[in-house]
Amino acid sequence: MSMANGTKPPSSPQPLTPETARSLVDSVEAFLFDCDGLFIFSLLKKLRVIWKGDKLIEGVPLALQALRSLGKKLVFVTNNSRKSRKQYAKKFASLGLDVSEEEIFSSSFAAAMFLKQRNFPKEKKVYAVGEEGILEELTLAGFSCLGGPEDGKKEIELKNNFWFEHDKSVGAVVVGLDQYINYYKLQYATLCIRENPGCLFIATNRDAVGHMTDLQEWPGAGCMVGAVAGSTGKEPTVVGKPSTFLMDFLLERFQIETSRMCMVGDRLDTDILFGQNAGCKTLLVLSGVTSLSDLQHPTNEIHPDYYASNVVDFVELSRTCPL
Amino acid sequence: MSMANGTKPPSSPQPLTPETARSLVDSVEAFLFDCDGLFIFSLLKKLRVIWKGDKLIEGVPLALQALRSLGKKLVFVTNNSRKSRKQYAKKFASLGLDVSEEEIFSSSFAAAMFLKQRNFPKEKKVYAVGEEGILEELTLAGFSCLGGPEDGKKEIELKNNFWFEHDKSVGAVVVGLDQYINYYKLQYATLCIRENPGCLFIATNRDAVGHMTDLQEWPGAGCMVGAVAGSTGKEPTVVGKPSTFLMDFLLERFQIETSRMCMVGDRLDTDILFGQNAGCKTLLVLSGVTSLSDLQHPTNEIHPDYYASNVVDFVELSRTCPL
Repeated sequence: MSMANGTKPPSSPQPLTPETARSLVDSVEAFLFDCDGLFIFSLLKKLRVIWKGDKLIEGVPLALQALRSLGKKLVFVTNNSRKSRKQYAKKFASLGLDVSEEEIFSSSFAAAMFLKQRNFPKEKKVYAVGEEGILEELTLAGFSCLGGPEDGKKEIELKNNFWFEHDKSVGAVVVGLDQYINYYKLQYATLCIRENPGCLFIATNRDAVGHMTDLQEWPGAGCMVGAVAGSTGKEPTVVGKPSTFLMDFLLERFQIETSRMCMVGDRLDTDILFGQNAGCKTLLVLSGVTSLSDLQHPTNEIHPDYYASNVVDFVELSRTCPL
Repeated sequence: MSMANGTKPPSSPQPLTPETARSLVDSVEAFLFDCDGLFIFSLLKKLRVIWKGDKLIEGVPLALQALRSLGKKLVFVTNNSRKSRKQYAKKFASLGLDVSEEEIFSSSFAAAMFLKQRNFPKEKKVYAVGEEGILEELTLAGFSCLGGPEDGKKEIELKNNFWFEHDKSVGAVVVGLDQYINYYKLQYATLCIRENPGCLFIATNRDAVGHMTDLQEWPGAGCMVGAVAGSTGKEPTVVGKPSTFLMDFLLERFQIETSRMCMVGDRLDTDILFGQNAGCKTLLVLSGVTSLSDLQHPTNEIHPDYYASNVVDFVELSRTCPL
């Protein structure tokens, strides 16, 4: 096994045993489930990936319920800002999964919570480059919003003597994935950030691409954020993954330290690395894109604390160990 | 005068005298005039800024003609990719300035010349995120183009089972300012760069904003380039300022070394710095945004080789010095 890149030998990833599963459950107060692995758009497909097969899908609600009954917080994390938590909860429900809005941490919600934590003045407005989810979360949090889908059809003709007005009371611009991106929105966001004193520039995330449809990847929020960074010469504050704003939020709201959180995901270079960088425990599920041989490959340097076949197995294992 | 930031004392900028003006003319084979100072969109306004006043405007054609009659190459440089050289020449003509297409170096032309220098295969295609100027210059140079204005009205609906086709024979994506930027173009450019092996990513320039109208600044090519960089995770090759592709081009085509070029402009932090970094001589004209007191201010660390009130004065001074 290569040790060229460090003095510490890579720890050999261990499969969960009843004892380690039980110990993981006991030592963790919040389980964070990544929802962005392969198919952001379709939670159904995602379920088939992370928890393959119809029987497992039946097992998932029970496994989640078992964790909840032990008093564990469950957080379903997604960088997708197109939907609000309410819309996600509906989607979960349609799949037979009882996940409450409070358990969903979307990057649209993160943007709203970031402004709340910063005591963003209610008399100021927020301009959104993005879709419904962002506007809905910002509005729910009590902020006045401009932009979003409404500005998707607005056109600009560059001609002399034309003056583009923007609202001087905009104090923050939130940029997320926007399939209706246009020059109007880009100019609006740019003017706010360049000309309104102290205006914040917040990115839901900077994912380059994502599975916005089942067949292909499409430009992600990183595209729109890159555009606004390019026209303003400023770098945004990112609130979605891989920023650790979620952890700050859980620490503030529930007093849970990152050492008592566990990141559960199917990708080594995003989910597991993100969890490790934040100081969380990490559990890789092999039901997604990473196989056991990927994990054990000599060139792999990202080692989760534990791995399991899937979430149901993990929970069942933990229950076979006596108290 | 502060010397805190370096061991070399800043050279004191000298106004041109008949002798230095003559010596500058004698030692230079190409004069590069920056056209992007204040009002990219309106060359008329630009003329009023760089060569203020109606009388000076009358003097400009004569001054340029005097330089040409001495065998000097004149190059009018602009990062604006929206127009082709032909369109610029028309604009110059409408202002009473006889500037030929060959004397104009727009970033749209630069993109075409870059592909030519790289022997970009004629059987490959170029996808353009940008406006007419880019397509016109690429086509004139013999390349097959896709995208541009034609794709400005195309809409995308993200839904399952929708497959976005892109041309696998696209071998280069050129990104410039595009007021009709949309998700269709962004996906097209992204797919070409991510999926077509060896596909080049060329930026006309990365200017954050520019005076696309007389009253305001608007997002520049840096905005569109930032978007494509954001969705591809790749950095482009820039062919407009401040890259030195123009100098490479002049060296190859006319065998003129940068030490025998002079950059003429009204801005210290763009024009003069760009000229200096490229190894050109530099002449600041005080008829634009930089005043004599800006130039002589203790905090200013950018010192052109020479300065003059305006271009007409420079040429007239050089002519008062006997051969």
